[in-house]
Amino acid sequence: MAIRCPAFFGSEMPSIESGALSPPPSPLILTQDELKKIAAYKAVESVQSGMVLGLGTGSTAKHAVDRIAELLHQGKLKNITGIPTSKKTHQQAVSLGIPLSDLDSHPVVDLAIDGADEVDSNLNLVKGRGGSLLREKMIESACKKFIVIVDESKLVAHVGASGAMPVEVVPFCWKFTQNRLQSLFDYAGCVAKLRLSNGGEDGEIFVTDNRNYIVDLFFKKDVGDLKTASDAILRLAGVVEHGMFLDMATTVIVAGELGITIKNK
Amino acid sequence: MAIRCPAFFGSEMPSIESGALSPPPSPLILTQDELKKIAAYKAVESVQSGMVLGLGTGSTAKHAVDRIAELLHQGKLKNITGIPTSKKTHQQAVSLGIPLSDLDSHPVVDLAIDGADEVDSNLNLVKGRGGSLLREKMIESACKKFIVIVDESKLVAHVGASGAMPVEVVPFCWKFTQNRLQSLFDYAGCVAKLRLSNGGEDGEIFVTDNRNYIVDLFFKKDVGDLKTASDAILRLAGVVEHGMFLDMATTVIVAGELGITIKNK
Repeated sequence: MAIRCPAFFGSEMPSIESGALSPPPSPLILTQDELKKIAAYKAVESVQSGMVLGLGTGSTAKHAVDRIAELLHQGKLKNITGIPTSKKTHQQAVSLGIPLSDLDSHPVVDLAIDGADEVDSNLNLVKGRGGSLLREKMIESACKKFIVIVDESKLVAHVGASGAMPVEVVPFCWKFTQNRLQSLFDYAGCVAKLRLSNGGEDGEIFVTDNRNYIVDLFFKKDVGDLKTASDAILRLAGVVEHGMFLDMATTVIVAGELGITIKNK
Repeated sequence: MAIRCPAFFGSEMPSIESGALSPPPSPLILTQDELKKIAAYKAVESVQSGMVLGLGTGSTAKHAVDRIAELLHQGKLKNITGIPTSKKTHQQAVSLGIPLSDLDSHPVVDLAIDGADEVDSNLNLVKGRGGSLLREKMIESACKKFIVIVDESKLVAHVGASGAMPVEVVPFCWKFTQNRLQSLFDYAGCVAKLRLSNGGEDGEIFVTDNRNYIVDLFFKKDVGDLKTASDAILRLAGVVEHGMFLDMATTVIVAGELGITIKNK
């Protein structure tokens, strides 16, 4: 993938130089991780001193958290309060010296920045393939503004098109809940699978920050109306939360071959 | 409260004797616990050998579990598989020698028998004041038949009229979830309170069998349409389940001053 690097790149980001007498340079090939970083840095431009910030989880959000810490240390941002969306992000933020709090103390969050596993054309998201959907959803539903940062591989025609839609379930009789979830979406060719840790290598069940399990739903077809699907899932006793984030993102920043695209709700 | 004891009472139950030449006996005064026992014994008449049974939790359901064990030991019931709705009922059933299984092995339950904290005129229930709402709801939503056993003090004009409607929430940022729950039902004068164990005497937070907390909702007014209220609660990230059991009971057996009343859906 090639991208012309925009002006907001810092010195640590790749840049393209051009010279009038030299032949035009071949486009710079950026990795997926560099694209993630580009989207993350763009999002952090919206952060202002004094904000309460939801700090996302995952490989893209990690770049945003790093950048916020960098601006804090440079004195370009002041008086930031971070609300981490996972234990992992909590550790990252602590190690970077970002002041932290929680929703109990700060029930209104000015801005959250987080990645997503999928983004559809209506800015509905799938999140939670990393396992942090519940805390992310709690915090991001408390936000005035929620900026989602993705590389273009995350854009999908419909929810579930690129892989799993995770559902957090209580451990008690998880097989029963898994079967009910699969039955719910029989019409969409759903296959429900309990998530294992380390890709199943050690046969251990993946456990969330809330000590629950995750059942991943794989759809062969579009599930149709997402709000109907959401309510149907939530009505199952045994389900704690699911990874569809509907009507929550206010802005999606996509970094791709042709540069940055910003989509607003 | 007085009740004429029906024919199904065993010898251990109080009974009224009448003689043609003696004066009519004064009505027998039964305690609330005896009324619960009457309802429980009546429900157990529906149990047949070979059934998979949901075993309820609480002071009324306990009588039903005791009675099932008694009939098993007498050989009047055979080949019963019990699915306990709580750790407490599990212990009770084990101590009584009732063969047990779970929903993973037996996803279809023939009959569940359980108490309730409230029953409205449409046989909608409030459950969970004892703390076992989630497992109860998982098992009782998997039943072909669900018999609810109550004394008449549990009949209410509307859900929440006699006390708390419990909501199981994840411990993470429970205050935030509590405040959102209270705000949701502002129009009904809702007050949301975290449940403490032992009535708050030791200041410890009550923890469910699933290691979650319970927020009790107290309504000053009728909350209106229950399905709307249910979906609104379930849509809050942080909520695991609530204690409204809507359209689930197939039969309610009420023991009261005037005898047994059986209401079918």
